[in-house]
Amino acid sequence: MIFFAEDMADTIYSMHWHLLISQSWLSHYPVLAATTESEGESNTLVLAGVLLSLVVIYFASKLGGEICSRINLPPVLGELVGGVLIGVSAFRLLVFPDSGCSADDSLIISFLQNTADLAPEMTESVFAAQSEVISLLAELGVIILLFEIGLESDLKELIRVGPQAAIVAVVGVIAPFAAGTAGLVYLFNVPAIPAIFAGAALTATSIGITAKVLAELGQLSSKEGQIIIGAAVLDDVLGIVVLAVVASLVKTGEIQIANIIYLIIGAGTFLIGAILIGRFLSPYLIGLVNEMKTRGQILLTSLIFAFSLSYIAIAIHLEAILGAFAVGLILAETEKRKELEEQVIPVADILVPIFFVCVGAKTDLSVLNPAVPSNREGLIIATFLILVAILGKVITGFTVFGQPQLNKLSIGVGMIPRGEVGLVFAGVGSASGALSEATEAAIIMMVISTTFIAPPLLRLVFQQTETNIQANITPPAEGISTQSETMDKLQE
Amino acid sequence: MIFFAEDMADTIYSMHWHLLISQSWLSHYPVLAATTESEGESNTLVLAGVLLSLVVIYFASKLGGEICSRINLPPVLGELVGGVLIGVSAFRLLVFPDSGCSADDSLIISFLQNTADLAPEMTESVFAAQSEVISLLAELGVIILLFEIGLESDLKELIRVGPQAAIVAVVGVIAPFAAGTAGLVYLFNVPAIPAIFAGAALTATSIGITAKVLAELGQLSSKEGQIIIGAAVLDDVLGIVVLAVVASLVKTGEIQIANIIYLIIGAGTFLIGAILIGRFLSPYLIGLVNEMKTRGQILLTSLIFAFSLSYIAIAIHLEAILGAFAVGLILAETEKRKELEEQVIPVADILVPIFFVCVGAKTDLSVLNPAVPSNREGLIIATFLILVAILGKVITGFTVFGQPQLNKLSIGVGMIPRGEVGLVFAGVGSASGALSEATEAAIIMMVISTTFIAPPLLRLVFQQTETNIQANITPPAEGISTQSETMDKLQE
Repeated sequence: MIFFAEDMADTIYSMHWHLLISQSWLSHYPVLAATTESEGESNTLVLAGVLLSLVVIYFASKLGGEICSRINLPPVLGELVGGVLIGVSAFRLLVFPDSGCSADDSLIISFLQNTADLAPEMTESVFAAQSEVISLLAELGVIILLFEIGLESDLKELIRVGPQAAIVAVVGVIAPFAAGTAGLVYLFNVPAIPAIFAGAALTATSIGITAKVLAELGQLSSKEGQIIIGAAVLDDVLGIVVLAVVASLVKTGEIQIANIIYLIIGAGTFLIGAILIGRFLSPYLIGLVNEMKTRGQILLTSLIFAFSLSYIAIAIHLEAILGAFAVGLILAETEKRKELEEQVIPVADILVPIFFVCVGAKTDLSVLNPAVPSNREGLIIATFLILVAILGKVITGFTVFGQPQLNKLSIGVGMIPRGEVGLVFAGVGSASGALSEATEAAIIMMVISTTFIAPPLLRLVFQQTETNIQANITPPAEGISTQSETMDKLQE
Repeated sequence: MIFFAEDMADTIYSMHWHLLISQSWLSHYPVLAATTESEGESNTLVLAGVLLSLVVIYFASKLGGEICSRINLPPVLGELVGGVLIGVSAFRLLVFPDSGCSADDSLIISFLQNTADLAPEMTESVFAAQSEVISLLAELGVIILLFEIGLESDLKELIRVGPQAAIVAVVGVIAPFAAGTAGLVYLFNVPAIPAIFAGAALTATSIGITAKVLAELGQLSSKEGQIIIGAAVLDDVLGIVVLAVVASLVKTGEIQIANIIYLIIGAGTFLIGAILIGRFLSPYLIGLVNEMKTRGQILLTSLIFAFSLSYIAIAIHLEAILGAFAVGLILAETEKRKELEEQVIPVADILVPIFFVCVGAKTDLSVLNPAVPSNREGLIIATFLILVAILGKVITGFTVFGQPQLNKLSIGVGMIPRGEVGLVFAGVGSASGALSEATEAAIIMMVISTTFIAPPLLRLVFQQTETNIQANITPPAEGISTQSETMDKLQE
């Protein structure tokens, strides 16, 4: 570790000039006297690595997306699978240090070594910096995605379905947690702490994956879509609370009530406060934008707003995406919605695929390898967990009473994918040392299965209702997009 | 340095779990057993730092841009000045390690410490990672800018004005280099090597700044605009050659002819080859895009193409922006130009300001402080260099013979800004140890002056012709944008 660190110090923090640096002016600020050779070159090579990574990511996302859309699966599933193919489980073009990979595992780094004169002593630092940048672009991607989802959501509808969404979210946390924990303890004789962790991992919902599929199906503004989004947002908050509870239980052996109350109050205040203050301020913001004369006024002003709230969300220990979602919701109510939506789409198009492909690339399918003994043991637990994961969420849709026309199955299915949120739980459990290898592998199998099963399942359950609705109300339309446009218009 | 490196190793490379991590799932891949606490938190804090930096950058760019557009100056000047205000020279919100700043100098880092619980032991690593990400976003910004400029350029026109652009570029390298070096040696008794370095720094042209101003004035597709862009692109290549010559002169005391021939042949082959092969391939690319069904097909396919060529440019020791520019040029000839332009604009709107604000933020105005003795001495040399810098480029416009209707002054003025390219020269000179403090300060003063003077000057000389043309051809139009639209239409 120290060797590696010194190595990094040499390459990143010492500055040294090199002959052909092109983009490296950023590092060549001449006021610093102690410039040395590798810094400039290192910066250029990081840029080269990032450019190559983006080429590979975009290629994988488009290839996967196009294939999936042709066999009537959600494109986002293709992006995930494309990510798996270029990631740690398959071709290892795009790997990350946090997946336990070093620069030697990365085909992109080998390519840089062979084509762009990447020197061996710089390899690890370039790999680390490139991974840092790509990971951060992925995080900006999911922030922009949630901003766009907020923009395409309807605040009034969301408030109207609020109680139903709350029930869905709460049941979707309690049911899988209780069933999962109890089942592991009584059926599989798993000790209490790992059983609680596995149960907690079952409570998560990946808002990113669900929202993306809903958007692809044109179902975001449907009543079902709004209930799912509302519930997924609440689930995100509940997930943070559950994680806090479980983690403090493992760490200190007790539950810190004060911390939990602080979290819940903080989250509530943030969401309600952001929307109230945002609605009050948004007319002034729009007025300001109308006064502005330079390019990109509405987009940049909105992003200043969205990133500020994302920052506040992080500062009060919530997720950044909640801030971006809230700002999207607020701006959706202004006259600029349409214009803003048009401008956000290309930005989302270049950033969001980075997120999904990275989720895929970081998914390590080696847990599915039956040659490893703990995987075999894990497989049995995993089968149980996957069943609980799916059933525990599917039943939530049926908690929505008195709305016979609702597609209740689709609501439950929409809550299934655990995605990146599930991985946080698994990661926390792994780091705490509380999980056995088999339980850990089982949790990861559950996260992978639910994440990859949910998109096609969601499409399936929505298409069934659509066919019904189409048959009753409108003449058959050409494709999905036309169908959903009709749906959207019906709602307006 | 070792302390710092170990510190980084602790925080970045060791993994440790922390309670409330939100976005940190990216780091929580559970397969890695040795996860420790700070990694996840560190990632979230880097995200927080990047979000805050973007808020500050967008705010500075919009504030500066709007003020400048109101007092009839180019918005990009406002972005540069906005950058100076938030940068190392003024409020120090956004500072970079390569400007010799540490985390303690950054107000954003202090803000993180006070509001987001950034622990002291993580401060330097979060600062380093945040700076790395922002610098890379700036580099992506200038790549997207040149892609957009290529898309708005006219390849046929560019080839038509090629010979004129070549003369402008060559004269614009030789004249300031000869006058600057000779003047320093004979008038100021500067030794040969630093005089040659200062002369070399005078040869650069910042294509980014000039192109942005031209785009703002709607003058990109004018004949003058195309000559400037063509000459600036060639100047970029010549600049790399000059830098290689001067650097090898300082380093080994001799000029490596083989290296220079390799560079020139490489650059020529790249530019011509990219355009020939690109023109041949682009119909297939468009055909492919027309077959695609998922969102963002044209944008992502084009970016795959642009980033690939940017990578190749880096690999053969050219600038990444040349690759992006070539792809923009090629795609401008396809039927998708309009659609692609519309989609690139929002992407450019969010990335390009990062580049210009960072150029401003990294500009250290302390070289202008007359209290420092070497600055006083430098000021006299700087006055001379600035004069040569301006005159040496202004005369280039008058080398274009036989085109009386051309605004020759505007061509020369368009070549004035040294910008980031000038800083590379200054940085290389500084790192080589060949420059005295006074000469170094003088070069930086020259770069700052030409960079900040050029945008308003360029606007001025273009407005004069426009007024003339307007008076002769069309009835007076309302604003600059309408005028330039008229200009553009006249050309089509």
